[in-house]
Amino acid sequence: MLNIGILGCGRIGQVHASSVSHVDGARVAAVADAFPAAASALAEKTGARVMSTDEIIASPDIDAVVIGTPTDTHFDLIDKSAKVGKAIFCEKPVDMSADRIRQLITIVEATGVPFLTGFNRRFDPGFATMRARIAAGEVGDVELVTILSRDPSPPPVSYIKSSGGLFRDMMIHDFDMARFLLGEEVVQVYATGSALVDPAIGEAGDVDTAVAVLTTASGRICQISNSRRATYGYDQRAEVHGSLGLIKANNVPENNVEIASGNGFRSAPAQHFFLERYAGAYVAEMIHFVECAASGMAPSPGIRDGLAAQMIADAAAMSLETGVPVRLG
Amino acid sequence: MLNIGILGCGRIGQVHASSVSHVDGARVAAVADAFPAAASALAEKTGARVMSTDEIIASPDIDAVVIGTPTDTHFDLIDKSAKVGKAIFCEKPVDMSADRIRQLITIVEATGVPFLTGFNRRFDPGFATMRARIAAGEVGDVELVTILSRDPSPPPVSYIKSSGGLFRDMMIHDFDMARFLLGEEVVQVYATGSALVDPAIGEAGDVDTAVAVLTTASGRICQISNSRRATYGYDQRAEVHGSLGLIKANNVPENNVEIASGNGFRSAPAQHFFLERYAGAYVAEMIHFVECAASGMAPSPGIRDGLAAQMIADAAAMSLETGVPVRLG
Amino acid sequence: MLNIGILGCGRIGQVHASSVSHVDGARVAAVADAFPAAASALAEKTGARVMSTDEIIASPDIDAVVIGTPTDTHFDLIDKSAKVGKAIFCEKPVDMSADRIRQLITIVEATGVPFLTGFNRRFDPGFATMRARIAAGEVGDVELVTILSRDPSPPPVSYIKSSGGLFRDMMIHDFDMARFLLGEEVVQVYATGSALVDPAIGEAGDVDTAVAVLTTASGRICQISNSRRATYGYDQRAEVHGSLGLIKANNVPENNVEIASGNGFRSAPAQHFFLERYAGAYVAEMIHFVECAASGMAPSPGIRDGLAAQMIADAAAMSLETGVPVRLG
Amino acid sequence: MLNIGILGCGRIGQVHASSVSHVDGARVAAVADAFPAAASALAEKTGARVMSTDEIIASPDIDAVVIGTPTDTHFDLIDKSAKVGKAIFCEKPVDMSADRIRQLITIVEATGVPFLTGFNRRFDPGFATMRARIAAGEVGDVELVTILSRDPSPPPVSYIKSSGGLFRDMMIHDFDMARFLLGEEVVQVYATGSALVDPAIGEAGDVDTAVAVLTTASGRICQISNSRRATYGYDQRAEVHGSLGLIKANNVPENNVEIASGNGFRSAPAQHFFLERYAGAYVAEMIHFVECAASGMAPSPGIRDGLAAQMIADAAAMSLETGVPVRLG
Repeated sequence: MLNIGILGCGRIGQVHASSVSHVDGARVAAVADAFPAAASALAEKTGARVMSTDEIIASPDIDAVVIGTPTDTHFDLIDKSAKVGKAIFCEKPVDMSADRIRQLITIVEATGVPFLTGFNRRFDPGFATMRARIAAGEVGDVELVTILSRDPSPPPVSYIKSSGGLFRDMMIHDFDMARFLLGEEVVQVYATGSALVDPAIGEAGDVDTAVAVLTTASGRICQISNSRRATYGYDQRAEVHGSLGLIKANNVPENNVEIASGNGFRSAPAQHFFLERYAGAYVAEMIHFVECAASGMAPSPGIRDGLAAQMIADAAAMSLETGVPVRLG
Repeated sequence: MLNIGILGCGRIGQVHASSVSHVDGARVAAVADAFPAAASALAEKTGARVMSTDEIIASPDIDAVVIGTPTDTHFDLIDKSAKVGKAIFCEKPVDMSADRIRQLITIVEATGVPFLTGFNRRFDPGFATMRARIAAGEVGDVELVTILSRDPSPPPVSYIKSSGGLFRDMMIHDFDMARFLLGEEVVQVYATGSALVDPAIGEAGDVDTAVAVLTTASGRICQISNSRRATYGYDQRAEVHGSLGLIKANNVPENNVEIASGNGFRSAPAQHFFLERYAGAYVAEMIHFVECAASGMAPSPGIRDGLAAQMIADAAAMSLETGVPVRLG
Repeated sequence: MLNIGILGCGRIGQVHASSVSHVDGARVAAVADAFPAAASALAEKTGARVMSTDEIIASPDIDAVVIGTPTDTHFDLIDKSAKVGKAIFCEKPVDMSADRIRQLITIVEATGVPFLTGFNRRFDPGFATMRARIAAGEVGDVELVTILSRDPSPPPVSYIKSSGGLFRDMMIHDFDMARFLLGEEVVQVYATGSALVDPAIGEAGDVDTAVAVLTTASGRICQISNSRRATYGYDQRAEVHGSLGLIKANNVPENNVEIASGNGFRSAPAQHFFLERYAGAYVAEMIHFVECAASGMAPSPGIRDGLAAQMIADAAAMSLETGVPVRLG
Repeated sequence: MLNIGILGCGRIGQVHASSVSHVDGARVAAVADAFPAAASALAEKTGARVMSTDEIIASPDIDAVVIGTPTDTHFDLIDKSAKVGKAIFCEKPVDMSADRIRQLITIVEATGVPFLTGFNRRFDPGFATMRARIAAGEVGDVELVTILSRDPSPPPVSYIKSSGGLFRDMMIHDFDMARFLLGEEVVQVYATGSALVDPAIGEAGDVDTAVAVLTTASGRICQISNSRRATYGYDQRAEVHGSLGLIKANNVPENNVEIASGNGFRSAPAQHFFLERYAGAYVAEMIHFVECAASGMAPSPGIRDGLAAQMIADAAAMSLETGVPVRLG
């Protein structure tokens, strides 16, 4: 039985705790949060003990930690957890600074602890199936990838201000998906964007509607578009064109009902947001983490995937600022 | 060049004349109609001559006739045309009486003229593809067939009164489709129906909402449903379940546009009615007729298919009346 | 906290126990099974105690029972549980004999205990949405209902022999769905069927491919088709035509991926079988049961719904035998 | 009756001649081609006379010309036709040089003749419906447009060499579509591309896989992707995201049949190429041209639309060459 400590009992910590209940061979043993009430509520639901983060990290009874605390605490928690040999599941982004992620890579790799970066979308049945079929050669050589992500509505401007900007906060998921689907490293990024959804986002120095074009050494191309607005649900799609054909992942509708009248045929909106759409992905992600933590196998995506996505995000932000494509590496 | 005489210049005669313009090796040479204005209008559009039906049948320059006149004139026109060796394309139903169709079979087969019964749906790209794939064994042995036809709105009650009833007027197309898809003759029919769309249809002694269950000797089953009402376009679908899988023909939408909002995803209604939905089928049907008329090959569906569908329709009408299944043959 | 006793720890008992874990305010307190190992396994997974069925029924600490034992034990368990005031969730069929269900109705209604008949499909997000929209008048007056159910493969012939036949074992779900969607009681049934999937089923006196036509007093019609075979997943669809339009529930695919090549576009099979397709329905069903058990509200579907479906199944079986439609009531 | 002269009887000239046969009030009166056999064949099919291009332009009996000759002859034919007052339908591109198009604008606008630039896709039922609904405000303010075009297979390298490159030969249609859908002029273009389909295309100095990002003054963004390869038919899609929702035009399948087995559900490829997909668009385009030619109304897209698309194509080609975004105007 793998004993897991949940660090951070906010929304994402609760999601991961719930996922653990679907995984054989693992249990939530302890939970910690800066707000005692949050920790108590999750403890009651899971049957875990409330402890401080330091106690959890120090406890020899805890095998693994799930880090769902604010980004600026990640460095310290990863550093400490790795040094005592805990398997680590860290929410993205690992850190806002690529340099600091590089420091963490040194630490994590020196200790050899299993480390999973929480790019949940890789575990979505749709995207995982796409990747498996591409790897099996079903679409031939990858040529062109298109990824689209649109949130149902923008977060508060206060959140935007400390988010690192759309490329680091939102499109970073798509940069990881691009690497997952392209099968080759990105060497150049062009990005542009506008504040069309909410002028306050523009005043805060960010964009809410943006696109990026990524290219690889062999000439593969990836287009990404993002928006902080989608009236019809959480829009999460990808398509990959290869020499033999096309593969794509469509949205998942709220239900399978269709209604027809003189206005035509109407079907349900896409599932509302990430908690619904990625419910299955979170469980699959935890199954993978538990399997790695139990066996010592290296999780994928690992910490280097966290760095790679962050570097593309940094380049995209620079491209937006400078108006020209930015080379990586 | 095959010279075709159009007998009857109403809506369906115009459709067939227009189809001829898409067929290489054939032209509309003459047109006839009880209403001189109807004949003149079609003559102007096609460059054909206006003649009487008798003149067309008598003319040695006319190779084939397309009969689109009222049903009660079919017998006489077929009889005369066959006896002078014209290839015959006759709109369904061949005749309201199965006995009279049997007489016509004797005449037509004695003369050996090519005879096509106008069951246009067999030539629809969707239904034709289904049949070809079933014949190729793609779904294995046929087990269960479901056919659905719904008109956008009921015809005038005056039409209903002289139509022979829903089973002979409307569901007859589905009875032919059932034979086309089942691959085995129908031996029993159960039918029931109601007047739910318009009480006046019920007062006229007919139904506007009806179903039938057909069975074959080996136990294959076909379900049919009909309605005189569909708010979302002309609903024309079929699905066939076999030992290896399912094949189905969906509706054809008016256009390929989808619009999404908080109410979900909305796409276009089905094409409005038979002129739109079966435009391609009418052309394919004429190509087949011209090919047969030119080569002497027997068209399919032929006159015996017209009889078979009529016999099922008669049995369905009797089942509705008696409340019990009726055996054929 | 509602304490639930699970009677019968086979596949369906396990499903219901798992559902309870998703319901706030309820827990699996005790489990019973004729096979001690089955009971122990479920006890370990849920944290419940192993008890005998008699102990569970006698225990004042147990508020509600979920009956997932063989059908021939239902009568006795319902009788005893009702008499001690337990809320009852009974898997369908309540009993194979309509007369015995009538006896149970008397008992259950005398005691006033909440009773839910396990017609899980009513709680499927698709079918529940359909019903809600029909009730809201979105398709106007219901005219024609089509229901299709196909299992991926037939059960063992040994099961078939004791199943009561396809109409009582399989189509009974569709009879309940017909009542759920028609909005009016069924007054007549015509049914026919064949053994096309496996001749051994025919030799056992049953059919594996069947259709039924149900009619209501006002002339509404429902078509049902069933097969014990579907190569492309568990086929579970319904469509309802009303005066204002059409509403239908499509299948749920295994995933949302589409792949395209020269052979066209390919998407995933339907979810494999009832455990996948109705996973959400089972949870929603348990939420409803817990809510009713806690509040004393009468669940829907109740025991009278169990009787009504059984009576239609009996009539369908008689129609198959006699070859003519059978009137109800 | 509008008398039309067809200049150039190749594939596209034949398409336009066939379209005229579907338009009331117009006929093909004369045809011209450098190859006498091509002219004769089209003359026979349409009943038109064979003439030289000079004779057609000089003839007072010809009201309008359709120019489907090689691009380098367009300038001279437009110049001469405009000066004698003929209505002009010119295939895209009007000319390879933006400067020369500017000269033609002066000439055409001085004469006031109706001039239609042959961007056929604007007349596709899908794209035309999208534009109409956007104009009606159904998706609110346009924010992000995505356009995808993929040909089934690359043209011969000999064609590529004289084509002006992918941006001027192929993506020019998408640049026009971008203007059609964005509702605001493009002010900047970033483009990149690779030769992934055929290395010979790269050796000829062109790309076969390319993307472009267009931006407008108010910050609207359009993504375009092109490929010379699509195994599953002619891929022609667009989607527009606005403040109120999404509108998109999907591909048109070859037929409406779906087949299901253990491998899932398979539907038909997209219509093979432009002759099939845009058959309806070509007819609608001709109807618009005839209406304008007959009434003196200015066609849309006009000659200035031809210039605007060419300027974007030039900027995209320059962006590919220089590696940085290029500003327009």
